[in-house]
Amino acid sequence: MTVHTVRSLADQVGGVVLGPGAEAAITGINDLRSAGPDQLSFLANAKYEALARESRAGAILVTGKDAEKLTGTRIRVESPSQAFAKIAQLFAPPPVRDEPGIHPSAVIAPDAVIGEGASIQAHAVISAGVKIGAKVVIGANCFVGERSLIGDDTRLYPLVTLRERSVLGARVIIHSGAVIGADGFGYDLQNGKHVKIPHTGYVQIDDDVEIGANTTIDRGRFGRTHIGEGAKIDNLVMIAHNVTIGAHSIVVAQAGISGSTSLGRYVTLAGQVGLAGHLHVGDKAVLTAQAGVSKDVPAGAILSGHHAMPMRESLKIEALVRRLPELVERLKELEDKIRSLS
Amino acid sequence: MTVHTVRSLADQVGGVVLGPGAEAAITGINDLRSAGPDQLSFLANAKYEALARESRAGAILVTGKDAEKLTGTRIRVESPSQAFAKIAQLFAPPPVRDEPGIHPSAVIAPDAVIGEGASIQAHAVISAGVKIGAKVVIGANCFVGERSLIGDDTRLYPLVTLRERSVLGARVIIHSGAVIGADGFGYDLQNGKHVKIPHTGYVQIDDDVEIGANTTIDRGRFGRTHIGEGAKIDNLVMIAHNVTIGAHSIVVAQAGISGSTSLGRYVTLAGQVGLAGHLHVGDKAVLTAQAGVSKDVPAGAILSGHHAMPMRESLKIEALVRRLPELVERLKELEDKIRSLS
Amino acid sequence: MTVHTVRSLADQVGGVVLGPGAEAAITGINDLRSAGPDQLSFLANAKYEALARESRAGAILVTGKDAEKLTGTRIRVESPSQAFAKIAQLFAPPPVRDEPGIHPSAVIAPDAVIGEGASIQAHAVISAGVKIGAKVVIGANCFVGERSLIGDDTRLYPLVTLRERSVLGARVIIHSGAVIGADGFGYDLQNGKHVKIPHTGYVQIDDDVEIGANTTIDRGRFGRTHIGEGAKIDNLVMIAHNVTIGAHSIVVAQAGISGSTSLGRYVTLAGQVGLAGHLHVGDKAVLTAQAGVSKDVPAGAILSGHHAMPMRESLKIEALVRRLPELVERLKELEDKIRSLS
Repeated sequence: MTVHTVRSLADQVGGVVLGPGAEAAITGINDLRSAGPDQLSFLANAKYEALARESRAGAILVTGKDAEKLTGTRIRVESPSQAFAKIAQLFAPPPVRDEPGIHPSAVIAPDAVIGEGASIQAHAVISAGVKIGAKVVIGANCFVGERSLIGDDTRLYPLVTLRERSVLGARVIIHSGAVIGADGFGYDLQNGKHVKIPHTGYVQIDDDVEIGANTTIDRGRFGRTHIGEGAKIDNLVMIAHNVTIGAHSIVVAQAGISGSTSLGRYVTLAGQVGLAGHLHVGDKAVLTAQAGVSKDVPAGAILSGHHAMPMRESLKIEALVRRLPELVERLKELEDKIRSLS
Repeated sequence: MTVHTVRSLADQVGGVVLGPGAEAAITGINDLRSAGPDQLSFLANAKYEALARESRAGAILVTGKDAEKLTGTRIRVESPSQAFAKIAQLFAPPPVRDEPGIHPSAVIAPDAVIGEGASIQAHAVISAGVKIGAKVVIGANCFVGERSLIGDDTRLYPLVTLRERSVLGARVIIHSGAVIGADGFGYDLQNGKHVKIPHTGYVQIDDDVEIGANTTIDRGRFGRTHIGEGAKIDNLVMIAHNVTIGAHSIVVAQAGISGSTSLGRYVTLAGQVGLAGHLHVGDKAVLTAQAGVSKDVPAGAILSGHHAMPMRESLKIEALVRRLPELVERLKELEDKIRSLS
Repeated sequence: MTVHTVRSLADQVGGVVLGPGAEAAITGINDLRSAGPDQLSFLANAKYEALARESRAGAILVTGKDAEKLTGTRIRVESPSQAFAKIAQLFAPPPVRDEPGIHPSAVIAPDAVIGEGASIQAHAVISAGVKIGAKVVIGANCFVGERSLIGDDTRLYPLVTLRERSVLGARVIIHSGAVIGADGFGYDLQNGKHVKIPHTGYVQIDDDVEIGANTTIDRGRFGRTHIGEGAKIDNLVMIAHNVTIGAHSIVVAQAGISGSTSLGRYVTLAGQVGLAGHLHVGDKAVLTAQAGVSKDVPAGAILSGHHAMPMRESLKIEALVRRLPELVERLKELEDKIRSLS
């Protein structure tokens, strides 16, 4: 167990201890509600002041302004949340060690190239023609298909599937259960049967992309499905064949993007959003949770709803929909009055 | 093949045979529509009486009341559905045997502790510092990360991923493809780049929880993501970092819960529900299928719709929405009348 | 690298070269926007004519009618898209070779039957009583549970889980991460606890079905969950216990089907559709993206929306909902007029 005094923690973040407990032992961190006398917490937002006042925390990180409102042991800092994040690292459990080298149970094709310092873990399978960069981690039970290329410092957590000819940049992170490069969903109806269209393309994932657990990214029909630099994809997202995700875009959990749709840069898709195929979503557009989109989205737009429309309009209309019972009442009253008038 | 007579089945459930076929051979069970002369079926709900009358089943489990309405061979019991479930067990195929011991192809860290009677199956990987209780089953190709703790009689079906420091209680069931403990989805935007926020917390799953296939439960940022005792989670559900699911809650397939949201006890989320982050859903609240929730939900509430509202209100408003064409007609008529009046 | 001349490609598809570049070297294919001088593209839809005019492609496949509207090198054919698909195969990378035989790292039960020419790949696990047909491919790290039956020419991509007693036809394709045969989601509430209902049924998948990545299909409670011949299921789909999918139906990504619901033949469920349990969807019915369905759907119907209704009605009502602000204005005006009249 890691133990620090309140004073030593304050020193680590350039803070000043206020109140009685500078020498108290702190063994961990927690939120204001849950923290006990041996834990540190923080107050970053004035609306939690009451919580801070009642907190049993051994010490609370606060701004100069908030420091005056509290009694008890405080550490005055410029940014409580940044200081808290820094202290959190001190108490963080040791990270998992990724032993460099190839685990004896891994199956590696004779012609695969494995970079220096790479860690290929138990039961991983590396197919023919694969090239893996330096310090790459391939987790247990992963599958890397033929002729895939993986850049330096990229990490596949356990049980990732990377189908043939995938191209990954550097510092990519792929979480467990993700499937990269499965066939796109496409058929020709011939004599009452859906005949499979071959998908001979591939998936390209650029530097610094992160892909969530159990997300699926299908390969292109001819060309590529492309995830641009720095994009971040959450869990259980569906990205269909030939989709393009622009650099630094964010796709939240359970969103789905149909074939050949392209997202610009810094786009945000919130959770459970659905996009039809062959659309373009402009730079910095935002689609709120559960939105359904069947038309192009202009850059910078903020759209909501099942038939996605501008969020302001959507909120206004939603409010009127809720007032429908009242509106119908008013309509009836008018009808009565007219009847009595005529 | 298992064969019973109608009479011997009746004896098993304390039932009385009515009609001609007491000595007929029964080799299996089926629903009223599909059952043949060598199969047993049941009538538990009066609305299926017509189906029962036309059924080809060799015998039908019925209540005393329904027994009079049918001819053919019947078994009169108090609860046809409970009797049927009991008889179903007689015809159930033998369960899969889970050989106790460690399969020679499994990779086990030298310091891992494996409880008595545990079954560690082919190609499973058990990391350093793991403690596994008695009679635990770890299915083929599972990964158990460093320092994870697994209580007695818990079962991981094949291809489950349990990341480091997960804590599982007793009698937990995790279905194939589930990913427990992947990093939460959190970034700081710095100079136009999304910088990853470390997620050093963990996932805690209490006794008697069941987790569906391909469901993902992310680890906490600092503290834990917590699934309370007896909660049941279906397939393809997304549970984000620091979420709390209260005891005995039900989360149906493809629902998604954003970061730091907490559910009380006995909450029900139906299929494809989406919850925003930092919310609280009170005890016994119910969210109907595809509901979208962006505000706290009081205990006991039943909410529906994309902008979740009380189900009664939702149904009323939905009915009025469908009447909009008529309401617009009435509005037009009023306008005409006013015009003629003035 | 594969190189063809424009003329040789034209010959392959029975086309006629128009324009100057018959002898130009073509090394690949691409869409009109991205194609360079050494790539072939195609114009199949008149609305992309402007793109074709500006394209840098070395040659463009066109119909006789469109050929006259363009300059540059063209190949005149009857069906540009079919010709393009044929030529795409010429440039397709060599397919992955699936070495027949059993990889030494695979774990095969002594009594499992493996058909002629089957390829059982690295770290696959084949349980007791399994029967695998001729030329079947079981990918790396797959799990095949006890007594499962797999027909000829069927393929499981890496990391598929097939639980016990699954029955697969011939030429079935199952993509990575799919979980076939996990327990259905069913409990009895007894004394405040959800008691698990045993699911002793199985999953049957008929000939020529394709199942997408990370899709889950639960086993039946007693009988079977059944996917009919030629049905195509996309990624991340949830199919619950005892569901029936009729032959040649299409289920797009992230759709969910609750327990015991049956789909007829040639049904289409678009992305993110949700169906309640115990429903029937008639032949050739179509549910558009994100539709929510809680009632039976007649054959041939096209339904839309969260409370699914006929698409025409849905579009009309949606248009009126968007006009609510205007309708409320008109209502107010009428009220004012009445007030002044009376």
